[in-house]
Amino acid sequence: MENISKYVSNMKENGLYREFKYLNSGQGPKALVEGREIILLGSNNYLGLCDDVRLKEVAIRAVKEYGVGSGGSRLTTGSYDLHKKLEEKIANFKGTEDALVFNTGYMANVGILSALCDKKWVIFCDKYNHASIIDGCLLSGAKLVRYRHCDMDDLERKINMYKGKVNLIVTDGVFSMDGDVAPLDHIVKLAKKYDMFTMVDDAHGVGVLGEKGSGTCSYFGVNKDIDMQIGTLSKAIASIGGYVAGKKEMIDYMKNVSRSFIFSTALPPASIAVSLKAIEIIEKDKDRRQKLIELSNWFKGELKAMGFHITDTITPIIPAIIGDAKKATLFSESLLEEGIYVPAIRPPTVQKGTARLRISLMATHRSKDLEYVLKVMQFHGKRLKIIEG
Amino acid sequence: MENISKYVSNMKENGLYREFKYLNSGQGPKALVEGREIILLGSNNYLGLCDDVRLKEVAIRAVKEYGVGSGGSRLTTGSYDLHKKLEEKIANFKGTEDALVFNTGYMANVGILSALCDKKWVIFCDKYNHASIIDGCLLSGAKLVRYRHCDMDDLERKINMYKGKVNLIVTDGVFSMDGDVAPLDHIVKLAKKYDMFTMVDDAHGVGVLGEKGSGTCSYFGVNKDIDMQIGTLSKAIASIGGYVAGKKEMIDYMKNVSRSFIFSTALPPASIAVSLKAIEIIEKDKDRRQKLIELSNWFKGELKAMGFHITDTITPIIPAIIGDAKKATLFSESLLEEGIYVPAIRPPTVQKGTARLRISLMATHRSKDLEYVLKVMQFHGKRLKIIEG
Repeated sequence: MENISKYVSNMKENGLYREFKYLNSGQGPKALVEGREIILLGSNNYLGLCDDVRLKEVAIRAVKEYGVGSGGSRLTTGSYDLHKKLEEKIANFKGTEDALVFNTGYMANVGILSALCDKKWVIFCDKYNHASIIDGCLLSGAKLVRYRHCDMDDLERKINMYKGKVNLIVTDGVFSMDGDVAPLDHIVKLAKKYDMFTMVDDAHGVGVLGEKGSGTCSYFGVNKDIDMQIGTLSKAIASIGGYVAGKKEMIDYMKNVSRSFIFSTALPPASIAVSLKAIEIIEKDKDRRQKLIELSNWFKGELKAMGFHITDTITPIIPAIIGDAKKATLFSESLLEEGIYVPAIRPPTVQKGTARLRISLMATHRSKDLEYVLKVMQFHGKRLKIIEG
Repeated sequence: MENISKYVSNMKENGLYREFKYLNSGQGPKALVEGREIILLGSNNYLGLCDDVRLKEVAIRAVKEYGVGSGGSRLTTGSYDLHKKLEEKIANFKGTEDALVFNTGYMANVGILSALCDKKWVIFCDKYNHASIIDGCLLSGAKLVRYRHCDMDDLERKINMYKGKVNLIVTDGVFSMDGDVAPLDHIVKLAKKYDMFTMVDDAHGVGVLGEKGSGTCSYFGVNKDIDMQIGTLSKAIASIGGYVAGKKEMIDYMKNVSRSFIFSTALPPASIAVSLKAIEIIEKDKDRRQKLIELSNWFKGELKAMGFHITDTITPIIPAIIGDAKKATLFSESLLEEGIYVPAIRPPTVQKGTARLRISLMATHRSKDLEYVLKVMQFHGKRLKIIEG
């Protein structure tokens, strides 16, 4: 335990140790954080559905009808008719033959990559891909080749240098800390040219981009070209879980082979019911999506006009790059004192020198509150010399 | 995709392909399985709490107050006061300084082992340990040494052969497919003798064994000697999730370093509220535990008297060893036709030649139903020449 003690005290000394901030209310545009009403600006509840009354009703009905826990893994006693309906709904939503629900997005990536790939495989992986993709690659035993973020020239160069017997390109659809979108059209072309498998983790694209909000593959019109569409049920979809959507045989294989799927108790019926209803709402409610995009565009424009260094994105993820980790933390703390919660994202989560506030909006944020945020960000941005003035 | 097609059709030809059985009701001693009322005999809902009215009330209250999804990871916007209360409760229940909740037991094992261990470590692992422990060992990069199931002589021999710079013994508390208990008293002695870390996954011991049902470590009186007590919230506790309990510094380290913890959306508030209440119920309700053990002992005795090959256990997991995989499947199917659901467990989940029905009882099973099960098992056991008669 000595090494652990040292590690923890080092973290504390260098301001890298992270503590929890506890909410005393639901996850809305405003929330009670340790007793104070705070504007939440770093949530993944993009569409504001976490406290939607229709989803609450569905959850309560499922608890009454099915109870609280699933009681078993999916292949023993833990599959419910709700799981079947949800998997059919996801397949339909994603334009694929079939789908399989995992307990989390992390487990989907780890379970799928380790079931599909082995030492014979080479996996080409965007440098900014989510940690769970990296862990899945490591667990699979495949050769992992990382290409420069969204850089198709670098990808093709590395394909030519390293490609092996079987090859896979894997990328986030929307990158969680940068909010930018992978060039899936180019990736599909390269995959066809070099006869490679493709996998997209669209955790942050679903509900936001594409037809009916079905995600980044739909946005690029490549639903049929991507072998494995991974996603989560815990962000815009406002519940918990992950999934893979694709060809029926691939799903049949995964449900019999993927270890993180097989060796885990199924999600509670109420969580499944919520996901099902949330996808129905997302498919129909174009206005909510529209409003989120409009709010985000306006907010980005205002921050840019003030002089903040904002990465250009088409998603509700707005990274305000500060650079220095300590300054980013100071900025985040100043905002918290004024009733605004945006966590500072520091290395190693992002590259050194690119510490940032990762702002993300909800469709349910009110302009009045966001105007207040802009005023406060401008004031402290100037005070901390993040912007001129 | 060709290899996948071949693999799936091979599985189907050899009777190893597994399909879901969908429930249309809650997880009780009786359940609706694809429209028919069936006696469930393979559930991990040991204490019958999955449809407990007090837990349903708590879940509904949490949905009303906090909404349906948590909206963020634990270190961003997804920590709720309920998480804090649950982690304090688990630490108190397990007799440790602190605890940390993961989204599943799988993620706890994978996240903890990969955060703690690296190439400098040697991990000594019981051959029957859960798949998630193996995946965690692989992901960590440590040297993995497997010792014969519960064989302390083999463990000590292997410690002397393979021990390295830092060493860990990891074991299930109760083994999921066999229902037997790891000799934690011996393991603690060996760990002290050779200065090793210890980790116990007590997924199937919690709620069943030890003082107040707090598990296998308590049963052996070694709570203070085990460095990491892993468990799940999805079996006797009737919700979803996993946890680690141990020293405060170890927990501080894990919450800042463990990747499966950091890179995943937190569990929904309602699931956390259910776990909290379920532990309270378990601590107080000695009768429920007692009833489960009494029912199990009686049921085991009856099966043995009929001539079934039943492994001796002190838990509600009752493995009826059949041997041949096809015969086990046939037996399971015959029981299902008579309204009894016990999945057949076959290789590779268990060793070749030890296919079995893994029976597990709930405290809420009624004697009348279990008497019917015994009659049917005897009839088909004789018919299939599993028992004499």
